[in-house]
Amino acid sequence: MQTDTLVAWQAPPIMPVDRALRAALRARVDGKAKPPGSLGRIEHLAVELGAMRHPAPPRGDNAVLMVFAGDHGLTEEGVSQYPSAVTVAMVMTYLAGRACANAFAAATHVDVRVIDAGVAADLPAHPDLIDAKVRKGTGNAACEPAMTIAQAALALARGSELAIAEIKAGADIIALGEMGIGNTASSSLLLHRLAPAPLDHCIGVGAGQDAPGLAKKRAAIEKAAARSDATAPFEVLCEFGGLEIAMMAGAVLGAASQRRPVIIDGFIATAAALLAVRLAPDARGYCVFAHRSAERGHSLALEALQASPLLDLDMRLGEGTGAILAVPLVRAASRLLTDVADLSDVLAGKL
Amino acid sequence: MQTDTLVAWQAPPIMPVDRALRAALRARVDGKAKPPGSLGRIEHLAVELGAMRHPAPPRGDNAVLMVFAGDHGLTEEGVSQYPSAVTVAMVMTYLAGRACANAFAAATHVDVRVIDAGVAADLPAHPDLIDAKVRKGTGNAACEPAMTIAQAALALARGSELAIAEIKAGADIIALGEMGIGNTASSSLLLHRLAPAPLDHCIGVGAGQDAPGLAKKRAAIEKAAARSDATAPFEVLCEFGGLEIAMMAGAVLGAASQRRPVIIDGFIATAAALLAVRLAPDARGYCVFAHRSAERGHSLALEALQASPLLDLDMRLGEGTGAILAVPLVRAASRLLTDVADLSDVLAGKL
Repeated sequence: MQTDTLVAWQAPPIMPVDRALRAALRARVDGKAKPPGSLGRIEHLAVELGAMRHPAPPRGDNAVLMVFAGDHGLTEEGVSQYPSAVTVAMVMTYLAGRACANAFAAATHVDVRVIDAGVAADLPAHPDLIDAKVRKGTGNAACEPAMTIAQAALALARGSELAIAEIKAGADIIALGEMGIGNTASSSLLLHRLAPAPLDHCIGVGAGQDAPGLAKKRAAIEKAAARSDATAPFEVLCEFGGLEIAMMAGAVLGAASQRRPVIIDGFIATAAALLAVRLAPDARGYCVFAHRSAERGHSLALEALQASPLLDLDMRLGEGTGAILAVPLVRAASRLLTDVADLSDVLAGKL
Repeated sequence: MQTDTLVAWQAPPIMPVDRALRAALRARVDGKAKPPGSLGRIEHLAVELGAMRHPAPPRGDNAVLMVFAGDHGLTEEGVSQYPSAVTVAMVMTYLAGRACANAFAAATHVDVRVIDAGVAADLPAHPDLIDAKVRKGTGNAACEPAMTIAQAALALARGSELAIAEIKAGADIIALGEMGIGNTASSSLLLHRLAPAPLDHCIGVGAGQDAPGLAKKRAAIEKAAARSDATAPFEVLCEFGGLEIAMMAGAVLGAASQRRPVIIDGFIATAAALLAVRLAPDARGYCVFAHRSAERGHSLALEALQASPLLDLDMRLGEGTGAILAVPLVRAASRLLTDVADLSDVLAGKL
C-alpha cells in the first residue's frame, strides 16, 4: 500500500475548538448561582460544550445514538466465543426495540438509529434500519487486508455523511455505539498501531472469553499484526478493519465538522475515535468520553487520547450503552450555561 | 432529654428488602441479551430495584426531586461564609426555575418540589412551594438544642407524609436534595454521633470556607458537640438539627414504607439517610446513593452506610444535583429488567 492512500478520503473541514474561549466560559460558569467549582466535572464539561458551539449556546435535548453494525473476517480464527450470526440477531433485536441499548435510550429520551455498515448477511428491509453496507464483513485480517482502500474511504465517508445528516435534521448530540462479533480484536490491532501501545496490553476478554478462548484470540491478533507493519491511520484501518469502526470514525469527523459533541462509548468506539483523531486531530475537541470500560485496553486507548471519562460503572457491553448514560450529563452541563441564573442576580433579588 | 423521646415519633412500617429474591433476579439479569456481567453496576442496581418492588416491576419514568430548605441557628457562630438570607434567595431561585437543580431536572425529565422545612423568614406564597415550615430556623446548636422533641417529630412526620403523597400521586423514584446555609455543620455533628466517627474527620469546607472560616466553623461545631453527648438518633437530631435534614430523613422512611427507591444526594442528604437508617434500619435497602461528594466527611458517611455511590464527578453543590444525575441510571437499570429481551429468545429468532 502506498502513502498516497492517505488521501484516499478527505475528512470534512473541522474548525478547532478555540482554547481562548475557555477562560471567558470558565468565568461565566463561576458566576452562576452556586459556589465556584461546586459542580466539579460538569463545570468542565460545560466549558468544553460552550467552546464547541460558541457563539451558539450548547443544546442537548435532541440526542441520537447511532449504532453501527459490522462483521469481522477475523472471527474465522475464533477470536470470539460467539458466531457472526449473533451480529444479525442483535441488529434484529435493536429493530425490535428489545436490546439493552434500546432500554437505556428509552430511559434517557435518546433516539436510536441502526446502521448496517457491513453485516455479513442480507438484512431484511426495515424502516428503522439504515443500509450503508460497504461489504459483507471484512476480510480475515489474519490472512489479508480487512478492506480495500476504496471500501475504507467509502465507510468513512458514509459515517461522516450520516452524522451530518442527523445534525442537519436536528440532533444536538451524536452518541456512538456498535455491534460486531469480533470487533474487540480489530480494535486491539487499531489501538496497538495508533496509540501506539504494546499489542499484548491491547487485548482483553471482549464479550467474555475464557482462558483457552483468549489464547486463541491472542494468537489470531498476533498473526494479523505480523502480516502488516502499517502505522499510518488510514492504512491501519484497511489492514485491520472494521467497517463499523470506520463508519464510527467517520461519524466522529462528521459531528466535529458540524461543531457538535460526539459521545464516545467504550473500547471499540474509543478505538474509532482514536482513528478519527489520528486522521484529523482537531476532531478531538468535540469528543466526550462517556465511561471507563472494564475491557482491558480501554484505559490505554483513553490515555492515548488524553481522555478522562465521565462514568465508571464497570460496564463492557458496547452498543452505545455507556454513551447513552453520559447523555444526561451533557444535557445538564449544557443547561448549566443556558438555564442557570447568575449568583449576582440571585443575591440582588433580580429573578 | 429522656430515653422515652425515642418513641416521640413512630416511623411508618417498612418491609425489609427480601435478600432471598436477589439470586432469582440475578439469574434474570444474566439471561438478558448481553454477555453476563457486561453492564456492571447497572446490573447490580437492577437486582436491587427488582427486589425493592417485587413482585411489581421496577419503574423509573416518574421521578420527583424534593428539595427541602431550612435554616440553622449555628450560622450565628459563623459556620458559613454566606448569611441565612441566601437560603431564601435560593428558594426563590428554585421557584423561578433558574437554579442548578432546575437545570439538571429539566435535562433529565425530573419534577421538582420545593419544601419549606424551616426557612428563617416568611416566604411568599407560591403555587410550587410546599409550606411545611416547622419553625423559622433551628436554635443555635452551639448554645441550645436545635429543636424540641415535638418539632423533630413533626419534621420527620411531614417529610414522610410528603414523600408518601408523591408516591401515591405517581412518583416511581424519590430523589432528595436540600438547601440550607449552615447545614454541612449540622450534618458533621450528625455524622460524628451516628456513624460514629471522629468529629474532625466529619468537618469540611462546605460551600467553600477559606482557612480562617474553616477554623471558625470547626470551633462552632466543637462547641455544639461539647454541649451534648447525645448518641441516640432522635436525640442527636434534636440537639444538632436541622429541620430540612429531619424532613429528608422522614422522606427516606416514607419512600421505604412504600417500597420505592429513594436517591440520596451528597453529604447532607447522606447524613439524613444515616439518621433515617439509624431510626429504621430496614430503610437502608431502599436507598440508592447517587454520587461521591467532594465534601470531606462524605466518604465516611457512605462507609457508615456501607454504600458505594454510582457517580464520582467531584461535585459538592447539594440541591439534589447529584441525585438528579443518578435518576437516568435508575431508570436504565429498571428497564434492563422490564424491557430487554432474553438472550435465548434473541438467538432463537423469537423477537
